[in-house]
Amino acid sequence: MEVITTGCIVAPTGFKAGATYCGIKTAKDSFDLGIIFSEFPATGAALFTTNQIYAAPVKLSRKIIQKGRVRAFVINSGNANACTGEQGYKDAEAMGQIAAKCLKTPEDEILVASTGIIGRPLPMDKIFTGIKTAAATLGNTPEHGNTMARAIMTTDTKQKDIAVRLKINNKDVTIGGITKGAGMIAPNLATMLCFLTTDVSMPASLLNECLRNSAESSFNRITIDGHMSTNDTIAIIANGASGVNIPSKNNDLRIFQQGLDYVTSYLAKAIVMDGEGATKFIQIDVVGAWSRSDATKIARSIADSPLVKTAMNGEDPNWGRIVSAAGYAGVELDESKTNLYINDILIFAKGMPTQCDLNVLSTSMKGRDIKIRLELGLGDFKDTIWTCDLSHEYVTINAEYHT
Amino acid sequence: MEVITTGCIVAPTGFKAGATYCGIKTAKDSFDLGIIFSEFPATGAALFTTNQIYAAPVKLSRKIIQKGRVRAFVINSGNANACTGEQGYKDAEAMGQIAAKCLKTPEDEILVASTGIIGRPLPMDKIFTGIKTAAATLGNTPEHGNTMARAIMTTDTKQKDIAVRLKINNKDVTIGGITKGAGMIAPNLATMLCFLTTDVSMPASLLNECLRNSAESSFNRITIDGHMSTNDTIAIIANGASGVNIPSKNNDLRIFQQGLDYVTSYLAKAIVMDGEGATKFIQIDVVGAWSRSDATKIARSIADSPLVKTAMNGEDPNWGRIVSAAGYAGVELDESKTNLYINDILIFAKGMPTQCDLNVLSTSMKGRDIKIRLELGLGDFKDTIWTCDLSHEYVTINAEYHT
Repeated sequence: MEVITTGCIVAPTGFKAGATYCGIKTAKDSFDLGIIFSEFPATGAALFTTNQIYAAPVKLSRKIIQKGRVRAFVINSGNANACTGEQGYKDAEAMGQIAAKCLKTPEDEILVASTGIIGRPLPMDKIFTGIKTAAATLGNTPEHGNTMARAIMTTDTKQKDIAVRLKINNKDVTIGGITKGAGMIAPNLATMLCFLTTDVSMPASLLNECLRNSAESSFNRITIDGHMSTNDTIAIIANGASGVNIPSKNNDLRIFQQGLDYVTSYLAKAIVMDGEGATKFIQIDVVGAWSRSDATKIARSIADSPLVKTAMNGEDPNWGRIVSAAGYAGVELDESKTNLYINDILIFAKGMPTQCDLNVLSTSMKGRDIKIRLELGLGDFKDTIWTCDLSHEYVTINAEYHT
Repeated sequence: MEVITTGCIVAPTGFKAGATYCGIKTAKDSFDLGIIFSEFPATGAALFTTNQIYAAPVKLSRKIIQKGRVRAFVINSGNANACTGEQGYKDAEAMGQIAAKCLKTPEDEILVASTGIIGRPLPMDKIFTGIKTAAATLGNTPEHGNTMARAIMTTDTKQKDIAVRLKINNKDVTIGGITKGAGMIAPNLATMLCFLTTDVSMPASLLNECLRNSAESSFNRITIDGHMSTNDTIAIIANGASGVNIPSKNNDLRIFQQGLDYVTSYLAKAIVMDGEGATKFIQIDVVGAWSRSDATKIARSIADSPLVKTAMNGEDPNWGRIVSAAGYAGVELDESKTNLYINDILIFAKGMPTQCDLNVLSTSMKGRDIKIRLELGLGDFKDTIWTCDLSHEYVTINAEYHT
């Protein structure tokens, strides 16, 4: 498997991207509108936020994706088009319509996504100009891919993209992806967007299943602060330009799934590492659970505890906070069977603290990566969640904004 | 109803308290061990943490309370006796035994509670000396009550106590209470302890029901950071010294319940106001829900969102964070029926922001108290949750401690 780190979203054959600055964001040297386009007819799949308050483009794209055919993504940053009422929905439709006209593709094969401030009408004049400019500058050079990755960023501090090239039946198959993370969008929401492209061909239903599988082991395994956005969207286009067709659940699909898992896992971790004010990347492994769902609940309870997150920020091996967060996850535990490791050092065994060397442990926590492993001793199931710490910087970013 | 603000825990007839410093805490001018004692045989009731990892005194007191007879509480601060294995349980038993001997009461009528550092053996020599001293200095002056309130504090910045005097059948009935809050206990847990005394007599089962009712409308309505402790205990003794007996669910009970509600509600709010790093007291009212449970879920989702808490800290009327936190509570919502008020100002109506004066609203948020009211328009149920903001001070307190 070859890893590609530049121009990722246009690395698969038959994809072009175009990004521009049309004046939605205030920083004039940024990009705020982009199009990802397949030169060939393609299938598509998408997953959306489960928040009951969701943005107009989410409502529209949920409808579009039903047919399973997608030719393009049109995305703006700087304005989420959420809590904008009926006009917001009309504006999302208009984004798709103008893009369809520029790209000469059916209007019902265009997914629309937005991220940014909520509760404000989209500046449609700017958006129209932006879509026309982006469509006119489509290309497949690395530069086109890179500016596209930047066009979806809000307060992300880093461009997040990756692509992998696989061999399936001796042919090159490529999967590319870009994502934006849980950086705050003044004044409101953190939104997770991820767009993926691939040059295999695959029925939409199978593509949807692959995307769900990959999301389950990547984006569904991360948490920054437990606050879910109104605009979260993960979407993929498969255009068949590689000449590889995967019609059903065969061995080729297994190879493809591995590639997609790699891409989504990389991107999900990149979001955590670039979390608001994050100084630590924390992996939480819960093993020996009675069920997978128990393991998940406990790992999430630990990951979302502000007390655990602040302890990690302080590089303090505070096992009490970790164990007690496990204890209130709503899952039966047996303290006397519970072991806890921090950075592979056993600090809590069978319900009591060990005599481990706290200096060695504290020193190990000065690195960026921290591993928490909780053994429950109750069964054979496990789960892993990735999160970051809670820092002064997080409070600064989120408290010191003023509407 | 007369409110008493000093010596509260010994304000009811027939109660004495004694507190001392026995060397568990480091600050020598503090108190770390106390006894609350009924001079007469009494019934008792108690509620405990639902954390699956719970302290030895919780395990012991759960057993003791089964019989429904309680003569005394013996409590130490500075050490939680949690995650201390079998020895911890023996130590909790020993605390009860020595107290029983000093107080000349049956050992199975003494509730034991601890709060403080976890994972360290109790210093039993000091505890024994402390219990003997406390028992020898029992009294019912305001000073006795006040030092008792201080003896359960850890990082609380204020003593928290209240008593009320009611008329039932023309007789004085008094209910007193002390609590300690969700201040961090180096290095580990925030513990909520609350001890209540009253001079009515009542069957233990009825007392238990009253206590549950009151806790439901007070301690179960607050959250600081969503992290539940291993030691939480709420307990009450009813000794009948007022001459008032409440044998069943009659009108007298209604008056008593109101008094108890007042006491627990006051104490619960005092915990929030003294939350770690708290600068704001936030009341979250969710109304118009399809069910009470829906209202609770949404109110808690808002209260526990770090993004909402940081916005409140920044005195920013960030309706997007509030509405989106409601949206991911796992409850069906209809955005187009949803209204949001902050400090009685309608900022979000039927799915869209209003044109309210943000300057007026922001100014109103500079006070300590902030009221958030979310109207769902779906049904007749409501709930209220009290919480505090998330400040730099919270991160400082919890990140900068080092084991």
